[in-house]
Amino acid sequence: MTLTSLADLPAPPRPADPVADALLQRLDGAHGEVRGLVRAWLSLPGSAPRRFGDTESHRAQVAAWLAEMAASGATSLGFPEAYGGRGEVGAAVAAFETLAHGDLSLLVKAGVQFGLFGGAVLHLGTEHHHERYLGAIARGELLGGFAMTESGHGSNVQALETTATYEPETDTIVVHTPHDAARKDYIGNAARDGRMAAVFAQLVVGGEERGVHALLVRLRGDDGRPCDGVRIEDCGEKLGLNGVDNGRIWFDHVRVGRDALLDRYAQIRDDGTYFSPIESPARRFFTMLGTLIQGRVSICGASIGATKVALTIAVRHGLTRRQFGPPGADEEAVLLDYRTHQRRLLPALATTYALQFAQHELVARVHRIFTATGDVDRERRELETMAAGLKAVATWHATATIQECRECCGGLGYLAGWRFADLKADTDVFTTFEGDNTVLLQLAAKNLLTDFRDQLGELDPLGTAAFFAGQAMQLAGERTAIRELLGRLADDLLPGRDDDADLRERETQLELMRWRERHVKAGAARRLKGGLDAGRDPFAVLVDCQDHVVAVARAYVDRVVLEAFAEAVARTPAGPDRDLLDRLCDLHALSRIEAERAWFQEHGRLSSTRSKSVIRAVNTLCAELRPDAGRLVDAFAVPAGCLGDAAGTGAAGPTS
Amino acid sequence: MTLTSLADLPAPPRPADPVADALLQRLDGAHGEVRGLVRAWLSLPGSAPRRFGDTESHRAQVAAWLAEMAASGATSLGFPEAYGGRGEVGAAVAAFETLAHGDLSLLVKAGVQFGLFGGAVLHLGTEHHHERYLGAIARGELLGGFAMTESGHGSNVQALETTATYEPETDTIVVHTPHDAARKDYIGNAARDGRMAAVFAQLVVGGEERGVHALLVRLRGDDGRPCDGVRIEDCGEKLGLNGVDNGRIWFDHVRVGRDALLDRYAQIRDDGTYFSPIESPARRFFTMLGTLIQGRVSICGASIGATKVALTIAVRHGLTRRQFGPPGADEEAVLLDYRTHQRRLLPALATTYALQFAQHELVARVHRIFTATGDVDRERRELETMAAGLKAVATWHATATIQECRECCGGLGYLAGWRFADLKADTDVFTTFEGDNTVLLQLAAKNLLTDFRDQLGELDPLGTAAFFAGQAMQLAGERTAIRELLGRLADDLLPGRDDDADLRERETQLELMRWRERHVKAGAARRLKGGLDAGRDPFAVLVDCQDHVVAVARAYVDRVVLEAFAEAVARTPAGPDRDLLDRLCDLHALSRIEAERAWFQEHGRLSSTRSKSVIRAVNTLCAELRPDAGRLVDAFAVPAGCLGDAAGTGAAGPTS
Repeated sequence: MTLTSLADLPAPPRPADPVADALLQRLDGAHGEVRGLVRAWLSLPGSAPRRFGDTESHRAQVAAWLAEMAASGATSLGFPEAYGGRGEVGAAVAAFETLAHGDLSLLVKAGVQFGLFGGAVLHLGTEHHHERYLGAIARGELLGGFAMTESGHGSNVQALETTATYEPETDTIVVHTPHDAARKDYIGNAARDGRMAAVFAQLVVGGEERGVHALLVRLRGDDGRPCDGVRIEDCGEKLGLNGVDNGRIWFDHVRVGRDALLDRYAQIRDDGTYFSPIESPARRFFTMLGTLIQGRVSICGASIGATKVALTIAVRHGLTRRQFGPPGADEEAVLLDYRTHQRRLLPALATTYALQFAQHELVARVHRIFTATGDVDRERRELETMAAGLKAVATWHATATIQECRECCGGLGYLAGWRFADLKADTDVFTTFEGDNTVLLQLAAKNLLTDFRDQLGELDPLGTAAFFAGQAMQLAGERTAIRELLGRLADDLLPGRDDDADLRERETQLELMRWRERHVKAGAARRLKGGLDAGRDPFAVLVDCQDHVVAVARAYVDRVVLEAFAEAVARTPAGPDRDLLDRLCDLHALSRIEAERAWFQEHGRLSSTRSKSVIRAVNTLCAELRPDAGRLVDAFAVPAGCLGDAAGTGAAGPTS
Repeated sequence: MTLTSLADLPAPPRPADPVADALLQRLDGAHGEVRGLVRAWLSLPGSAPRRFGDTESHRAQVAAWLAEMAASGATSLGFPEAYGGRGEVGAAVAAFETLAHGDLSLLVKAGVQFGLFGGAVLHLGTEHHHERYLGAIARGELLGGFAMTESGHGSNVQALETTATYEPETDTIVVHTPHDAARKDYIGNAARDGRMAAVFAQLVVGGEERGVHALLVRLRGDDGRPCDGVRIEDCGEKLGLNGVDNGRIWFDHVRVGRDALLDRYAQIRDDGTYFSPIESPARRFFTMLGTLIQGRVSICGASIGATKVALTIAVRHGLTRRQFGPPGADEEAVLLDYRTHQRRLLPALATTYALQFAQHELVARVHRIFTATGDVDRERRELETMAAGLKAVATWHATATIQECRECCGGLGYLAGWRFADLKADTDVFTTFEGDNTVLLQLAAKNLLTDFRDQLGELDPLGTAAFFAGQAMQLAGERTAIRELLGRLADDLLPGRDDDADLRERETQLELMRWRERHVKAGAARRLKGGLDAGRDPFAVLVDCQDHVVAVARAYVDRVVLEAFAEAVARTPAGPDRDLLDRLCDLHALSRIEAERAWFQEHGRLSSTRSKSVIRAVNTLCAELRPDAGRLVDAFAVPAGCLGDAAGTGAAGPTS
């Protein structure tokens, strides 16, 4: 069947258990309706993800799905009302996140078309681009790519080498690939379907280099053949996402009109001169990039959506599969009755909830900033920091959790039909695209350290100087260390003391996370400043502090995610769903603290006795949450068709 | 070309750099010659791993490779001389390990045929089975499966449900699948090529259940069609290893002769009575399983072989790929100049060396025990412990390292031609087959705790009782804790003290590992004993201590692996290769101690200051080893054809 209107969709699947249903509403957040529509679409037999024998049939199906979604009107959601959309940025991201339960090639192709290509036209172009293209893009009539990455530059995109040279005589811009490493690479929609691309290139006007700008270049004519001067090569088979037609593009002096330049932040005026309200080329480029943050936020959400599928399968399997057990018993024990199995799945489940609530906060910020009218520069930087950090943490969480879930399903999980094959392969690249995770953490840390310096700037000069000389902190730190040590000594000599209790208090958990963030940040700032003050080579100083810098971003993300979860619990009206969320938040918080307990001990913030209590508390929480494991995954409401062959077994239906 | 004799092989590839070549000889250990032969075979253009468009062509190529290997005589290496082999068990495992550089479906299919099926006939059968089958198995003329796993029982194989009932009237055994969950599942060589299988079933003789025994059952006639009563189903597409024809088998009252029973450990005598020299059915079964240890040891080695491929690609890429770098510099910096990148690859590289040396030790033990004539019961249990623990740790190391390497190669690493697609997919199941890793760690721990109890048994009864009451240890523990705490206090008040120095001493590293193993073991024993003494349900006690029990095995493996590496360094004559190995051993040891530093602090064995010193020492070692990173992977001597398309790029050739 082909869907032509959202009104034709059946009701989306919902858990039968009322507590699970209440949890679903919390997880859905502000955009429950649109999430429900996506779930309803994924529940149609024709929309379920499946295995394809060859790349071409996979690509063809993905293209057909994309067309169906566009025809239903669903894909215009995030575009302005003036161009047939609804201007609901947040809803668009939520829809994307839910689509990640299904075929991830469709997800990525939709992201390229509507998020990246459409987003570039929307955010970097001006009215004449919008008038001309946005409607056709939203309806899927004009398919396009986002041609930023080059073979030679994937992360350091400010150093791209494709050139776009303005020629005043002809009033045109010449787009050119100067050498092979400057070819555009891995461009989605390029190998098969795209007709156009937003191409990022070094703009040259009046003989002067102006930095990286984006412009629209036709790739293919209506007959599907590459335009003159455009050479396209298929990237070929990939580890995953083979339904996406990634390609390489070379431009041989391709000429486009001056109006092809996406000119929101820089124009070539009628007299052939260059103008931009932002003077610094670097700042201009990062302003442009900043408007494209939605892609990163979407991948963050998608990794959560994919993780939910894996957890649903593995938890339900763990509730039905029996192996070993009490000698002489009639039945063997179910896997999830083993502590080792609880440990492998339940903290990851708790963190998935936590990331979902952090993602809500992130999406709300995107929506606020992209619909704001006043000056939002500071908020924009905070958004960039949060998006970068959260994307890295959520995608790594997806990789680790999906792997753990596969292993928890043993040989069954290794069957291709059980979805882990695709989930693993398709999400793998999430850790390195839309920004390599390690690079992103450093970007987040750079912002955090800049903010930190700015805050210090507001203090009295003497205090700041003393801080940076390291004296004040050093002293304070030592005093704390001695105090902590004495406390530890007392703790350790009282082995019977039960100090698990206050570890279950939210304020204790939050304070630990906040303290760590402050401490790591101050330490990194001090080290960087110390190295620079000593006159050392700045690059060497950075490399030397690099692990510390990355730790700043991780500590920040831990704090932000826990705060988001804590607030979500606080907002939930009293009831069994709130109680469950509350315990789940404890498990998330304490398993993160457990993972970082070496650091907390090193910095005198957890005594050895309390550190061991954290481990015990995680064990206790796993056992406490074990009876609710089924309803906790039922609340993800992943359509049965998205569970693959696992749906025909123990992982079949709601277990609560 | 088809190889018919090992003499036709070219010389194997060797690194040009003399230090790398010296390291290669250390890594090759006792079986350099056979490893060289495998490398030479893998260097033939026709032997290189490649991508297959469909399952059938992959299976056909794997079957052809297998036949070629068998025709060359290479596959008889591990079989007794009487049957055309060379009786070199250790060499056979080393060959298998090296074969893991290539197509892993070939590896697994060869493992099924020669290791599992051949091994069952060799170790569980007696002379008449050997006479009749071993030659044909070694020559690849009789292909067979190892039919142990059932759908309902993968880990708990003592509870298998297939029955083998002896009928005295006809002097035959009836093999039967009583219900669907008892079908044999995931059996390699079953779906396409196998003619016979070693089938594990509950043997019933004289109306009495005798426990699980193995017997040979024909699956197919010479025409390839399933025999009467045998139903075979293809497992279909899997996450990886699609060149292996895994299948499901149902037996419907299939009748075999009494001589089909592999009767080394139990016989049905001419008078139709059952006899076994081992009285306990459980002990009998585990004795049988024990003889099949080679499969587990081989997978352990194979995971090391596959990890080497991934590290070779990622380290060479990290030495050539440039991104970002000092502002204003002519060139961007190579990735491996970044500390974050060094941190991701170099400790994993060091641990891969460590595991290789531990694997040498493991293989030497296998060889010793399987060629011993006297009583080797105790050594056999130690071997089982080591094989179980090392297999778990080495396969998880492979999964994690291959993933890290993929990410370190960014988008390029995501191209199917770069080998990570296959390396990831094919090695994934290593963590759950030949024993699920979590189950194996518990098996190892059970043995270790049993040994521990036995040792205590040799002490005076009073001392033992006191120990088990927990008093002695408690006291000793507290005294130690107080002493440590005071030491820590002193340490922490002297922040300027450079105590990195002794962390680089091998004795310090070893003592930390040994202390941890002893302490974790004593703690787990005390907890288990305490729970049982308190009259609690044994299964509940076990579940409650399960994470502690698993920690026993991990601490044991850490100690064993470090000792093996330390001994390898000590055995190496003075020279630049020894210096390099020495530093690499430091990096391995300290990165393991770093990973466990939370525990060392919790138990008063590392002060917070020293714990931070460990982190610094790892950073320093990474920087020290950075210039040798290229030669360290060149020493793996992975044939270029096994590096896939990566060989055409920066990961091309030796970098030293």
